[in-house]
Amino acid sequence: MSSPQITSLAESQMGQAHSVEATSIGQYLLDRLRGLGVDQMFGIPGDYVLSFFKMVEESPVEMVVTTNELAAGYAADAYARIRGLGVACITYAVGAFSLTNAVAGAYAEQSPLVIISGSPGTREVKRNRLLHHMVGDSTTQMDVFKNITVAQALLDDPLTAFREIDRVLDACLRFKRPVYLEIPRDRVHTPPIHPHRSFHEEPVSDPDELREAVAETLEMLKKAKRPVILAGIEINRYRLADRVLKLAERHRIPISATLLSKSVFPERHPLYLGVYQAAMGRQEVTQYVENSDCLLMLGAMITDTDTGIFTHQLNPDYLVFATSEQVQIRYHHYEDILLEDFVAKLDTSELPIYEPTLPKSQNPIDQPYATVPNTVITVRRLFQKLNSILDANSVVIADPGDALFGAADLSVQDSAEFLGSAFYATLGWAVPAAIGAQKAAPSRRPIVLVGDGAFQMTGFELGTTKRFGLNPIVIVLNNKGYLTERFLLEGRFNDIPNWQYHRLPEVIGHGRGYEVFTESDLDRALESAWQNSDSFSLLNVHLAPTDHSPGLARLGENLSKRV
Amino acid sequence: MSSPQITSLAESQMGQAHSVEATSIGQYLLDRLRGLGVDQMFGIPGDYVLSFFKMVEESPVEMVVTTNELAAGYAADAYARIRGLGVACITYAVGAFSLTNAVAGAYAEQSPLVIISGSPGTREVKRNRLLHHMVGDSTTQMDVFKNITVAQALLDDPLTAFREIDRVLDACLRFKRPVYLEIPRDRVHTPPIHPHRSFHEEPVSDPDELREAVAETLEMLKKAKRPVILAGIEINRYRLADRVLKLAERHRIPISATLLSKSVFPERHPLYLGVYQAAMGRQEVTQYVENSDCLLMLGAMITDTDTGIFTHQLNPDYLVFATSEQVQIRYHHYEDILLEDFVAKLDTSELPIYEPTLPKSQNPIDQPYATVPNTVITVRRLFQKLNSILDANSVVIADPGDALFGAADLSVQDSAEFLGSAFYATLGWAVPAAIGAQKAAPSRRPIVLVGDGAFQMTGFELGTTKRFGLNPIVIVLNNKGYLTERFLLEGRFNDIPNWQYHRLPEVIGHGRGYEVFTESDLDRALESAWQNSDSFSLLNVHLAPTDHSPGLARLGENLSKRV
Repeated sequence: MSSPQITSLAESQMGQAHSVEATSIGQYLLDRLRGLGVDQMFGIPGDYVLSFFKMVEESPVEMVVTTNELAAGYAADAYARIRGLGVACITYAVGAFSLTNAVAGAYAEQSPLVIISGSPGTREVKRNRLLHHMVGDSTTQMDVFKNITVAQALLDDPLTAFREIDRVLDACLRFKRPVYLEIPRDRVHTPPIHPHRSFHEEPVSDPDELREAVAETLEMLKKAKRPVILAGIEINRYRLADRVLKLAERHRIPISATLLSKSVFPERHPLYLGVYQAAMGRQEVTQYVENSDCLLMLGAMITDTDTGIFTHQLNPDYLVFATSEQVQIRYHHYEDILLEDFVAKLDTSELPIYEPTLPKSQNPIDQPYATVPNTVITVRRLFQKLNSILDANSVVIADPGDALFGAADLSVQDSAEFLGSAFYATLGWAVPAAIGAQKAAPSRRPIVLVGDGAFQMTGFELGTTKRFGLNPIVIVLNNKGYLTERFLLEGRFNDIPNWQYHRLPEVIGHGRGYEVFTESDLDRALESAWQNSDSFSLLNVHLAPTDHSPGLARLGENLSKRV
Repeated sequence: MSSPQITSLAESQMGQAHSVEATSIGQYLLDRLRGLGVDQMFGIPGDYVLSFFKMVEESPVEMVVTTNELAAGYAADAYARIRGLGVACITYAVGAFSLTNAVAGAYAEQSPLVIISGSPGTREVKRNRLLHHMVGDSTTQMDVFKNITVAQALLDDPLTAFREIDRVLDACLRFKRPVYLEIPRDRVHTPPIHPHRSFHEEPVSDPDELREAVAETLEMLKKAKRPVILAGIEINRYRLADRVLKLAERHRIPISATLLSKSVFPERHPLYLGVYQAAMGRQEVTQYVENSDCLLMLGAMITDTDTGIFTHQLNPDYLVFATSEQVQIRYHHYEDILLEDFVAKLDTSELPIYEPTLPKSQNPIDQPYATVPNTVITVRRLFQKLNSILDANSVVIADPGDALFGAADLSVQDSAEFLGSAFYATLGWAVPAAIGAQKAAPSRRPIVLVGDGAFQMTGFELGTTKRFGLNPIVIVLNNKGYLTERFLLEGRFNDIPNWQYHRLPEVIGHGRGYEVFTESDLDRALESAWQNSDSFSLLNVHLAPTDHSPGLARLGENLSKRV
């Protein structure tokens, strides 16, 4: 992370420096979250959580009320990805079950998301009656969330609630996955029975395992002529990007990222190869990575989307694969090594300084752009144009589908950020995520790329921007259908009604809309949108029904064999 | 149910007369559902479910593609309430986790909803890799759904899949709760290993328990002077309304309903008392029901919303309480009696014909309505007006909040229908439910009552109406806030941005919008909307921020003591 503000937040988390004294269950939870850098939460009120909402309103923390809970979940997820912790706050059942999908996505993509759910009062529950919103019995909701979070607690007992909060927040920060806290409405103001101060236990690596694994890795690196670092999403999540980049720079090791971790490194860095996507990626990147004689794969997940549907050909003889869960070297594993310790120990003067020859970039969209007036806009030209104007004050947020596949080739500037539901691939993530992203980093303007199908799912969340002073630029790739699916299996179910997306400001009473058919329209709209910092801007970009990015064509070829 | 079409569907379910021969897993599932009266399904395609979507498209079943999965779930839920079975069909994880809340609501309110989820192919899963959309491992999704459905099956094995389909559909029809079927994408076209014909086992009552319980009940009824039948939601779900009404008519027993089962009886019937809601309801109804010397409570749930937050005073000495789970008479229980058998046996010539004196209705909105021109519209007058124009071709669908509390007093005509998320109380249910309701009963036009907060959650689902030939009338009660919560605990979090809802047709490119400030505006808008049968109509009715129905005032008083 290059923004100083954000770095300091990450550091405050590491040491958990902010010691907190417990006063009440609700207040302690709020104070702990503030100490971990949470300045905003996202949610929808409801009677079981009203007291906690009131407590938040009376604190310095801003409650961003979205239109629905799923959007609150997506926004908090994006906030978590940038800030290192995000919070969604909702009422019982109708609230919690509405953002299940956001929590599942955060689990799949390792985003440290805290869910705070209100629930019926302890006295109400004891009487064992059917209370509104209830499903099954009083544990049904937590039973559901146990499957998609790494730690859970019901904060019903003032004897244990404070330690439970510490434990659950520790798990969130340690595993970078969602956690679940349920606070009965009559426990928000309940004081501790004994004094409690926040407590945090730092995990440590097994020193022998660490020593051996590092020695082995250095041995492999010293023999290598063409080492490569492939950094996955955990390098982002564990705030290790600066450290890995320094390692790469000091020893001149070429670097690559996955689609999910795109922007972990500055993409115009001289050592940067591009996004590795195996058969689905750019050939010169794939070849360089796969021909490495020592591949340091750090914090990556072997997913279908990040490996061109498992077309990767990474020779285990030359592979060091370290994640938060284990370090694998060639064919054996170490279980008790922290990723951060492993990365830190690699940066030693024992290592040579390499002399890599990076391949010439074959990026199809990274080239000078000159408008061809009155020419119908295409997907490729749209991305070329965007690539030419992206600046360091942007955060690019791409929704799954061709918005994401096309955006993979964008060259994200040094301090910019790229966010996407790149593995979980949930449509409709991007617009609500932009709400969270801009709250997390107000100096960066979100540029949202989203298909028409996805926009119909959640695009109306733009109605939330005025109240909270946000000004994202949203580009709807309007091809009147589920394009990715058209490539797999065609049917009427892939058709999407053609809405007048650019007229949305008339309903919301705010924002600017643009309709784009040609390259000239695009220029004018983008120029106007860039200048309009007072509200959201929405570009309805009409595209031919099967026009697509090169990446999608390759994906389609791969997937259609499997449907 | 009074519509002949719908009655016949219910009957075909009871006997499960439609015998089906298995050809492939997908085709058998589709044929079974068609045999049970399913002519439409609701869903969103995705790569893991595309093959099944294609199979549906090539069948006589219509696939209603909504904008998002939650809406598909709500629509299928409403369809299930009217037709006796509803189906939502979605892709793995991103689809299934997005409609969790609809499934939870259907579970809570006993709606027979079938969830069909696509999933990765059996060969893909065996290789144990991270496939897009996956969370945790391959059983995580089913583990979640086990908490909110009554039966589940993974249809991965052609040796068992066909029997599993029979078992799961039987459970859905028997318990009137959601079930979950997961079909791997490479199993849609898989044929059976052995021939299979559909099989159905009919549950039976224990004859001794039934005889004793009926005899006891008749004994109580014979002694009674003021019997009352209070019919709950199961009388709707088990299609027993006609039978119970006949029992009431034959013996002149006054009848009442709960908020959740409102419209189970024709509301202008001379024996109909009104909706029973204890302290929250109309006084004359509460008194009559609570002073009964033999209360037959049939198929009801004792929920907070149906009992004025447990203010009900029903004397167990005079109570017979029969549900699908048990029959309780005074202080003892029978466990093995079917509700339908119990109801059938009560209607005997042994019973006297009573001579009840029903109280005069104090319904505040059931009175002649004359417009006061240029007068600001209020909640009470809005409901009075609606009450005066509702006809037998309507289905009233009320979203939780004051839309629902106000609608409780509407006198729903004989063959009309009333739908609401009256116990689970999930905001945003009504608009998507209208899609399902009109598909289930095309001759009835949905009249949707929805608050502004709820409308922002899901109202854009109106964009689905054009493609599927629907024309609901949607009335947005726009008071710029979460009104129910304002009564409980006020804060900025209860404020909702004031959108120009009536301009939504400009975005969707279809429909008619009206802005309503006065009684005259309301007249004009309703008249125009009633005449406009070609598209949806949307009334943006501006209301004062704290204007409310009498029912909400009473609820607020009760709830505020508990927040």
